[in-house]
Amino acid sequence: MDITSYLSRKKDSVDKALEKLMPPPKTFPSSVHEAMRYSLFAGGKRVRPILAMAAAEALGAKSAGLLPLAGTLELIHTYSLIHDDLPAMDNDDFRRGRPTCHKVYGEAIAILAGDGLLNMAFEVLSDPRRLESVPANRLIAIIKEISTASGVFGMVGGQVVDMESEGKDIDFPTLEYIHTHKTGALIRASVRVGALYARAGKRHFTALTRYGEMVGLAFQIADDILDITGKQEEIGKDVGSDIKKGKRTFPSFYGLEESRRRAVEVVDKAITALKDFDRKADPLRELAKYIINRGH
Amino acid sequence: MDITSYLSRKKDSVDKALEKLMPPPKTFPSSVHEAMRYSLFAGGKRVRPILAMAAAEALGAKSAGLLPLAGTLELIHTYSLIHDDLPAMDNDDFRRGRPTCHKVYGEAIAILAGDGLLNMAFEVLSDPRRLESVPANRLIAIIKEISTASGVFGMVGGQVVDMESEGKDIDFPTLEYIHTHKTGALIRASVRVGALYARAGKRHFTALTRYGEMVGLAFQIADDILDITGKQEEIGKDVGSDIKKGKRTFPSFYGLEESRRRAVEVVDKAITALKDFDRKADPLRELAKYIINRGH
Repeated sequence: MDITSYLSRKKDSVDKALEKLMPPPKTFPSSVHEAMRYSLFAGGKRVRPILAMAAAEALGAKSAGLLPLAGTLELIHTYSLIHDDLPAMDNDDFRRGRPTCHKVYGEAIAILAGDGLLNMAFEVLSDPRRLESVPANRLIAIIKEISTASGVFGMVGGQVVDMESEGKDIDFPTLEYIHTHKTGALIRASVRVGALYARAGKRHFTALTRYGEMVGLAFQIADDILDITGKQEEIGKDVGSDIKKGKRTFPSFYGLEESRRRAVEVVDKAITALKDFDRKADPLRELAKYIINRGH
Repeated sequence: MDITSYLSRKKDSVDKALEKLMPPPKTFPSSVHEAMRYSLFAGGKRVRPILAMAAAEALGAKSAGLLPLAGTLELIHTYSLIHDDLPAMDNDDFRRGRPTCHKVYGEAIAILAGDGLLNMAFEVLSDPRRLESVPANRLIAIIKEISTASGVFGMVGGQVVDMESEGKDIDFPTLEYIHTHKTGALIRASVRVGALYARAGKRHFTALTRYGEMVGLAFQIADDILDITGKQEEIGKDVGSDIKKGKRTFPSFYGLEESRRRAVEVVDKAITALKDFDRKADPLRELAKYIINRGH
């Protein structure tokens, strides 16, 4: 299969779904609506919604009905980027090659745009008009999955420890905590949301969870490597920004070569987790490989 | 009935429920868990959870099973206070007589504590272990109610317009927008959550919605009056802070006496909305009166 064209088709359908989810740009009060859209439509690759759709397809489900639901993963991801970039947090001026939300709209509107997107995710997830094909009890399980990944036991916890570790000589388990929570939690949740949507049995659900965990880890190692070796155009921010901030990364523990070797190993584990799946899981397999070749 | 002892009993049960909802204080990473608890247990009167319980009781339902769910209204309320107090927003150093969250824990942790509480609300609302007596489809309706009140069509929108109106000579409809969104939306939602929990029929649901809207308005007028006439101990922040910030308020349009008269009129409307309810709605009636006599 051609993963590039698969990703491009899926990205288009996610972008269209997100356009439908969001209120029109001129909605009152327009500043916050513009700010939400500015960050949401900033050229993200939609990795998380695509993982959810590919997981559902691996189980034989059609993924079209999943689209609004998969879109909420991108709303959550975007909210976290806006808040993480704030001056009081990581203080990043650029994201995907464009000024960050607070640089354009100011801090107050950026905080509120993040809050707006986070709430919007749950407004969509509880809107029966958008999700009529999903029974209420399954929707509740999906809301549980997403809110837990997004909250203090997921991304919020990861961001706290990431910030508190800056400039400190942290140990490897602390780096692992940051990775599994700040990035890993929502990636794992994305795969599991697709699995829940497609009514995965216990065995498949466990296998997809393992796949999601390995992909999340590979994603983070690749990200750490890109921060050192990537071109600015590719990563959309300054090269070496982790080092400048005194952040420990995977390569700072294991060196570049060993980090690359581990990334490949982790992708192999992700693919091995899918051994009981047939060819319908090929997009998931190709996605795992794509992640370490491309970053995000 | 004695509203003071009713409120005191209800507040105790809400506080106990919130203690059970929240992870233990030493949970890792402790900074954000401490910050969430610092603001959540800062002496709030729990008006929103109590409104939800009183609405459920007015319909003959027992409110004990509603407690975790009612508690999420306080999580949402607290998240909004933490974010609204931030330097980039209203820049308030004191709240309920204590330093605000960011003064104690720093801006970054305050932003994340707010995010953590908002996510926690939805983690609780989707946790079947906590809410086993509520069927999934009703839970979805309740999540819709709360997320909409909390997001860009509710509190977030109200805060945006409130901030953008500072120092400007806004018209009365703009002040009404701020009131109905920033404070009114969650108060109305609180009453409706109680009604949804108790399976209100259409007529009762409409009446309780009207009650919630009037109580929200009365609450805001009383708040505006208190900002001028209250003692610092009562309101927990500087007297006259609205005026200092160049914020237009109800009394700035109508004067103090007319504002007082309107507050009483709005409370009467709230009580009139309950005309088809029996004595089980007395706590709601007394709550409406209490709000303009006491502030919040």
